[in-house]
Amino acid sequence: MTHPTAAMLVIGDEILSGRTRDANMHHLAGELTAVGIALSEVRIVGDEAPVIVEAVRALAARYDTVFTSGGIGPTHDDITADCMAEAFGQSIDVRDDARAILQEHYDKAGTDLNAARLRMARIPARAALIDNPVSAAPGFTIENVHVMAGVPSVFRAMVESVIPTLTGGAPLISKTLTVFRGEGDIAGPLGALAQAHPELSMGSYPFQRDGRYGANIVVRGVVEAQVDMAIRALEAEFG
Amino acid sequence: MTHPTAAMLVIGDEILSGRTRDANMHHLAGELTAVGIALSEVRIVGDEAPVIVEAVRALAARYDTVFTSGGIGPTHDDITADCMAEAFGQSIDVRDDARAILQEHYDKAGTDLNAARLRMARIPARAALIDNPVSAAPGFTIENVHVMAGVPSVFRAMVESVIPTLTGGAPLISKTLTVFRGEGDIAGPLGALAQAHPELSMGSYPFQRDGRYGANIVVRGVVEAQVDMAIRALEAEFG
Repeated sequence: MTHPTAAMLVIGDEILSGRTRDANMHHLAGELTAVGIALSEVRIVGDEAPVIVEAVRALAARYDTVFTSGGIGPTHDDITADCMAEAFGQSIDVRDDARAILQEHYDKAGTDLNAARLRMARIPARAALIDNPVSAAPGFTIENVHVMAGVPSVFRAMVESVIPTLTGGAPLISKTLTVFRGEGDIAGPLGALAQAHPELSMGSYPFQRDGRYGANIVVRGVVEAQVDMAIRALEAEFG
Repeated sequence: MTHPTAAMLVIGDEILSGRTRDANMHHLAGELTAVGIALSEVRIVGDEAPVIVEAVRALAARYDTVFTSGGIGPTHDDITADCMAEAFGQSIDVRDDARAILQEHYDKAGTDLNAARLRMARIPARAALIDNPVSAAPGFTIENVHVMAGVPSVFRAMVESVIPTLTGGAPLISKTLTVFRGEGDIAGPLGALAQAHPELSMGSYPFQRDGRYGANIVVRGVVEAQVDMAIRALEAEFG
């Protein structure tokens, strides 16, 4: 199965400190899977410029598309835009197109476009803006990296804008069979089936529920009939 | 603030596909923060050996301690132990000490220690076993990397075993002030306060709730009186 690949870079101390549980990664994973793009790696880093720069370079080189979330607001710890400019060797300053968007938004709201808010118009020179229908301040696309807000409502709106521009593969079909047996009993037959069907990807995810052991066996593939065949074979084995 | 640093490597396709929301990262972040260790980076990768090997090498070189979760069960997609052996140049095979633990566990349960289950006794040659009070199959520590199960109940039990062996820093004190103002109004005074107090770390995490904009301002530091002082200064500014 060859699918376009994607990675995500989550930027911000709040998730690493355990204060906040990330919701954007789970959302993006689902949206990408639906259009046949495989989310292949996620990195979560703090608000530290050298780490951010190195991470985005590594991910942009390895995967077809990269999504970042967080660090594009007006406060002193919002350093994502400057890091992206550095990572890709572009200059960065307040850009007229971004400033115009903010000016119109804050004029309507009767709010002052002060120095802090103007920071959100700092965009790398050759980046393309991503529309923010929720709170105006734009994201941007720089090379193969889509730079988006961390606030979940804004992140989702930006994902909606970006997804239709991506070239996906055939949507991946994923079906799950829950088996109340120990993984040690599942492993042999599952491994043999996986080996016999390299066109499918099979994973086993164990759990313990109400004192019983079990596993969710997930079969993924492009052709639904093949996935169904494998699920039926597993049902016959473990049903 | 110099604190020991830690990273986490989450191994498994199920989180990247959006099927499962990770719970272990959030748990580990909280446990580490409580003992004064900063979780500095998290990577989530799929069940692909070269990616796992490269990620663990990079994290082990950069951070004091690394925790991995996932991929140490009995099924064909459980390749973590072999990847760790490769990453650190150790041989790997079924080890007698690990086999004895499994044998005793399955004898008691009247379950056959079959070939698949015996895979869980494959441990790199110079690794130290980590106790698994939930389901017996051990984790292990190899160099500065603690290799643990992905099943949350087992992961938590292993974290409990490992944490007391780590040297932490002074526990980080973290306090949060919720301000119902736009971040653009918060940014100026917050930035000035952060600059005046390099001994503290301050972050602003915006939200939108019931149509109102606001932000959680988080102040972190080692000395509680300093953290309190900063929170009071912010309350005076925004209260």
